[in-house]
Amino acid sequence: MTILNPTNINQNVRNLEYAVRGPLVTRALELAKELNNGAEKPFKSVIRANIGDCHAMQQKPLTFFRQIISCATYPSMLDNPDIPEDVKERVNSLLDACGGRSVGAYSESCGLEIVRRHCADYIKQRDKLDQDVDWQNIFLTTGASEVVKVTMSLVNQSSNGKPVGVMIPIPQYPLYSATLCELGMHQVNYYLNEQENWSLNVEELERAYGEAEDQCEIKVIVVINPGNPTGAVLSKRNIIEVVEFAQRHNIMILADEVYQHNIWAEGASFTSFRSAMAEINAKLELVSMMSASKGYMGECGLRGGYGELYNFPLDVRAILYKLLSARLCCSVLGQITMSCVVKPPKIGDPSYEKYEAETKQVLSNLKSKAKLVADTFNSIEGMQCNEVAGAMYAFPRLSLPKKAIDEALAKNQQPDFFYAWQLLESTGVCIVPGSGFGQAPNTYHFRTTILPPPDVFQDMMNRMKSFHQQFLARYS
Amino acid sequence: MTILNPTNINQNVRNLEYAVRGPLVTRALELAKELNNGAEKPFKSVIRANIGDCHAMQQKPLTFFRQIISCATYPSMLDNPDIPEDVKERVNSLLDACGGRSVGAYSESCGLEIVRRHCADYIKQRDKLDQDVDWQNIFLTTGASEVVKVTMSLVNQSSNGKPVGVMIPIPQYPLYSATLCELGMHQVNYYLNEQENWSLNVEELERAYGEAEDQCEIKVIVVINPGNPTGAVLSKRNIIEVVEFAQRHNIMILADEVYQHNIWAEGASFTSFRSAMAEINAKLELVSMMSASKGYMGECGLRGGYGELYNFPLDVRAILYKLLSARLCCSVLGQITMSCVVKPPKIGDPSYEKYEAETKQVLSNLKSKAKLVADTFNSIEGMQCNEVAGAMYAFPRLSLPKKAIDEALAKNQQPDFFYAWQLLESTGVCIVPGSGFGQAPNTYHFRTTILPPPDVFQDMMNRMKSFHQQFLARYS
Ligand SMILES: Cc1ncc(COP(=O)(O)O)c(C=O)c1O
Ligand SMILES: Cc1ncc(COP(=O)(O)O)c(C=O)c1O
Repeated sequence: MTILNPTNINQNVRNLEYAVRGPLVTRALELAKELNNGAEKPFKSVIRANIGDCHAMQQKPLTFFRQIISCATYPSMLDNPDIPEDVKERVNSLLDACGGRSVGAYSESCGLEIVRRHCADYIKQRDKLDQDVDWQNIFLTTGASEVVKVTMSLVNQSSNGKPVGVMIPIPQYPLYSATLCELGMHQVNYYLNEQENWSLNVEELERAYGEAEDQCEIKVIVVINPGNPTGAVLSKRNIIEVVEFAQRHNIMILADEVYQHNIWAEGASFTSFRSAMAEINAKLELVSMMSASKGYMGECGLRGGYGELYNFPLDVRAILYKLLSARLCCSVLGQITMSCVVKPPKIGDPSYEKYEAETKQVLSNLKSKAKLVADTFNSIEGMQCNEVAGAMYAFPRLSLPKKAIDEALAKNQQPDFFYAWQLLESTGVCIVPGSGFGQAPNTYHFRTTILPPPDVFQDMMNRMKSFHQQFLARYS
Repeated sequence: MTILNPTNINQNVRNLEYAVRGPLVTRALELAKELNNGAEKPFKSVIRANIGDCHAMQQKPLTFFRQIISCATYPSMLDNPDIPEDVKERVNSLLDACGGRSVGAYSESCGLEIVRRHCADYIKQRDKLDQDVDWQNIFLTTGASEVVKVTMSLVNQSSNGKPVGVMIPIPQYPLYSATLCELGMHQVNYYLNEQENWSLNVEELERAYGEAEDQCEIKVIVVINPGNPTGAVLSKRNIIEVVEFAQRHNIMILADEVYQHNIWAEGASFTSFRSAMAEINAKLELVSMMSASKGYMGECGLRGGYGELYNFPLDVRAILYKLLSARLCCSVLGQITMSCVVKPPKIGDPSYEKYEAETKQVLSNLKSKAKLVADTFNSIEGMQCNEVAGAMYAFPRLSLPKKAIDEALAKNQQPDFFYAWQLLESTGVCIVPGSGFGQAPNTYHFRTTILPPPDVFQDMMNRMKSFHQQFLARYS
């Protein structure tokens, strides 16, 4: 007899799902171990395309970043003649901001002032603003994930006894559904339009709002742009429509903009919610977030991120910052990573050329894979894939044979999970079934990243293509 | 008209308090800036004794730690001839465990297996166990703070509609009251016995339990050992009594053991809850936690920590780990810091001598300040301080003159806040009033750290002594 058991602990925690790290991933890890131990398998390697983890897929860290973090940690390294002047300067200015000139001191709860200022300058430049951005509206976090968590916790109070509702796109990044579930909030799904390249449609927002209004008190709309898992990039027009929708209903916006550097489609560009709102002089509250984990740096393990508050009442901001103070601060090295993200070397700086070359390489690789993935999937019978206009994923639609669907359901499995499981067991390719992100009823998808290095990626495309053909043959 | 305002957001978040970073700290930062800008003050420097932030108080980072973290971040540094062999080996084994051999890859949700194994070995050695500790019961976190947060979230469900109750010591470290407040849990205070060196008394636990039983469903008892802010170190006898109490009432234990390396009193030693439970073969659930922030390393800003589950049902463990997966992972460099904490150089290793010398120095400084602080306070009329047997704080009691109390209350201030504010304004010394930690009704205290370097610490003692005398003179 134990004190705790699955039924007497927090059922919200029990029920939450996080597909990106679900049972398929566990099985993929096992398979890799089995291969290592010499087991016979129909494949020679496991390819993990389940998670946006750039360095794990052999992407190389940027030298500028690593020199700064490393020297800030162990300043004797600054004597090394290989360390460029601009790195030394940055390290010294960051250390000046740390208690005792050590990254081992707690920073202020919202992060080092100097890094918050770097972020503010970045936003000003990115959005081509005339006015300065207030650095005090920026708070540094343990990855963008923490921005989501604290924002949801902050607003989680309804006036009518019903749960607080949060509108999220379907398909979505499962951090959202997991956080809402943990906090007992009501998930209000709005569907992205797969027929039109996963675009975001205001009538659909109104439908979702209208149908959920009775069950909850809707307070937030989440938009992910560029989209994970969809790869869609929203136009400024579209963003303004969302802002107007939010204004009509008096709800705040949480803009997940962690893929702002990952734009691939010709003619597409990133528009921040902040700049769209400024353009129409919209006065509603926005939280936008950025991360060190994506872009061309891909520093996931360093856990850097920031949130920016826009149009927030100062007293509410103070309460949010008090909440952050209870966890003391986020990793100072994560904060320093964010400084590198938002303030990279400029033309003329000693580190500039290397930095430019390294980032260009990463981005051009990703861009060609973004094209390759959609082309390959679209060349396969029974698969249909929208353009990967941004981010790091493709989310193709599967037309599964009825026999496969029946067999999956008989096994009590989602049909796309059934498909993904077989793909993993027979090819070693690990992807995430669409059901982990949400999808329209009776449609099936999966998400793959475009991160494996070009040769592995080509191999993966080949494995998936031949698996798919065999699967169709088997179940038709 | 804004969408959010202080009354329509989460009132639990609005109400939470975190005194260690409250208004006094904000004022101390302002004063330091004013001094920097040449303002005239009755003091030459601000001394921040409000927070256990070792490096901010000039404690030097350990070379072994910083070499490892720095080389793991930027492996070209490994070629540096000054880097010892054991550092190279550790870095290589840690990088082998990282995706793509980069600390920029996400780790598994619970942390790198190799570091979890290091932690397990450490516990085995520390507690002189015959059997191995299961590394799968260990999860790595963003400081110990995160262990508290996820544990509380996990158990936050009651069967009778009443809030979940959590017993915490008074005085306590305000992370606990803040977390309980945020999660809407019921704080059940048990008072530590100031007359007997802040000891923990089982009758008092029974009293607290009995009186709260009607208002909540008590599920957890928190024990902080060594104590913050009390400086007390629990005996094994005392710990066993707590375990038996928890067994009687079928509640789990959360053991905050982050100060396990900080023991100063002659004859005192650290006993883990885990080992005490093993000794009496107690089968109830325990979560114990450790941090990189304290001890002799004081690496607060790197945000390393771990939790160990003991006697946890596997299905409940799986649910907790699923919750952790939704935040992806904690900082890999924080994880690597924990590896250094739990697996320092051994006798004979190239880094050993330097490491020994550095840690000895830190610990002996702290030890002498632990004695000095109590002796000084006890030499002051109207102050009474228990032995600082462990941790990094003193929590003396103040006998405040009635006139001072009246003036404070007239200003709507806690009398000890009133005292601390005046201390800050007239001497530049920043401490935290006892009301931030909780204290018996009509008693007044403050907490000071013992972290400032010896000369500054002596200066601080002098400033406090003369301030106190003036304060008494003024209000008597
Ligand atoms: C859309 C989106 N938002 C947020 C995150 C969180 O990333 P992190 O916490 O590593 O910054 C991710 C990670 O994959 C993501 O895809
Ligand atoms: C008793 C106690 N527990 C936990 C913590 C949390 O420390 P961290 O999150 O830095 O590991 C602290 C920090 O001061 C503490 O004093």
